[in-house]
Amino acid sequence: MITSTTNKQIKMIQKLQKSSKERKQQGLFVIEGIRMFKEIPVEYLNKVFVTELFYEKNRELFKDREPDDFVADSVFEKLSETQTPQGVLATVKMRNYSLEEVLGKEENPLILVLENLQDPGNLGTILRTAEGAGASGIIMSRDTVDVYNPKVVRSTMGALFRMPFYYADDIFEVVEEVQRRGIKVYAAHLAGEGFYEKDYRPGTAFLVGNEGNGLTDRITAMADEKIRIPMMGKVESLNAAIAATLMAYEALRQRLQS
Amino acid sequence: MITSTTNKQIKMIQKLQKSSKERKQQGLFVIEGIRMFKEIPVEYLNKVFVTELFYEKNRELFKDREPDDFVADSVFEKLSETQTPQGVLATVKMRNYSLEEVLGKEENPLILVLENLQDPGNLGTILRTAEGAGASGIIMSRDTVDVYNPKVVRSTMGALFRMPFYYADDIFEVVEEVQRRGIKVYAAHLAGEGFYEKDYRPGTAFLVGNEGNGLTDRITAMADEKIRIPMMGKVESLNAAIAATLMAYEALRQRLQS
Repeated sequence: MITSTTNKQIKMIQKLQKSSKERKQQGLFVIEGIRMFKEIPVEYLNKVFVTELFYEKNRELFKDREPDDFVADSVFEKLSETQTPQGVLATVKMRNYSLEEVLGKEENPLILVLENLQDPGNLGTILRTAEGAGASGIIMSRDTVDVYNPKVVRSTMGALFRMPFYYADDIFEVVEEVQRRGIKVYAAHLAGEGFYEKDYRPGTAFLVGNEGNGLTDRITAMADEKIRIPMMGKVESLNAAIAATLMAYEALRQRLQS
Repeated sequence: MITSTTNKQIKMIQKLQKSSKERKQQGLFVIEGIRMFKEIPVEYLNKVFVTELFYEKNRELFKDREPDDFVADSVFEKLSETQTPQGVLATVKMRNYSLEEVLGKEENPLILVLENLQDPGNLGTILRTAEGAGASGIIMSRDTVDVYNPKVVRSTMGALFRMPFYYADDIFEVVEEVQRRGIKVYAAHLAGEGFYEKDYRPGTAFLVGNEGNGLTDRITAMADEKIRIPMMGKVESLNAAIAATLMAYEALRQRLQS
């Protein structure tokens, strides 16, 4: 039983929660809560920490694998990043997808390309929604927020373990590669048009820009077509996750009806 | 020039930022940043506070109305809830909409009904997106997060000043009233069906539930129809703001095409 916050393992977990660099060096990230814990593919589980109460109440979760350590309630509370800690936390091995895996095996992939997204909640929501929309994968520019940031992890609601993603060192090069494979690239843009009139049933990639600045001119210029999501009232733009959702789901709507 | 954080006006602003009760008692809320400041209808402006630098750089904003007070940079930084304070902050009078105003004057209103939403970012995003989708207004159960919470205000991106909203003391009674007016009420539900097949061009209200628990059984039972937004993969539910977006925009898509 770990009863002190100065315990080495506790210190390590806190480092992994706070530092993207630390996560990269260790190849590990932290998940919390029963829902996320149940979603972890067993081969990616590194270490499991529980409170005694959680263990007693959820014995069936540990049939095949005992927790690595028990943590005193007071220590767990300090470790937890949620307001009402559930009593289970794990370190999980990162998974590296190839660009091939992200583009998927389907004949007509549906891809989201995120350029410099910064809001962890937005990124997590996009992963969750992309899975819902049947997307093949997500490509992100290197300067996009870390997908293993605890806030991102939490808001994916488990989609993190299922939705392939790829950080591109050179996003422009990767967009070119996507186009070479015959996937049509669309940029949401105020000067675009005909959002609902395009055909997204063939291979489709949607570009989604940074929360404050939108897409850069350079990546916008690369798009095969500019589209404009209709906006009534005096709305000038939509939240990045909202725009990504509307684009991905319009593709799904068309694909379900054909 | 206010140079101390113990200044009475500074204390008052901080109370308004933190406490929903204080906001209700005073009938005031706080906005920050140049974008939101520009959006305030002049008759709702209460007091304006700026840094000297902001004033010098944005003189044209104060042609018709001088700031009420200057605030020292160090004090403004403590007051600001953003990481890079822009130097303008205002207290604004609340606006009370009647249910009539929320239901709109259009023959076929589009309404969102939010039951016990708790995440400020979700509520703000829903206001912004609802305006984009051409919604008439938003009805919320009394236990929904305060729309004047600074995080909500910020994420509306100005839609707060344009999208009519109404807190219902008895949400069930108000839903009945909506139905009496011939507006069809839809609940997003796992047991629902045919999301894209329904006709949302006539008067339509969509029910959106709490982030963790979804809609209560009682309000779900009141809906005229249950619909299910399609979800691929292993996704069991969508974020509340995402679900609200997809419903409101499907209504807009149908209305634009008819």
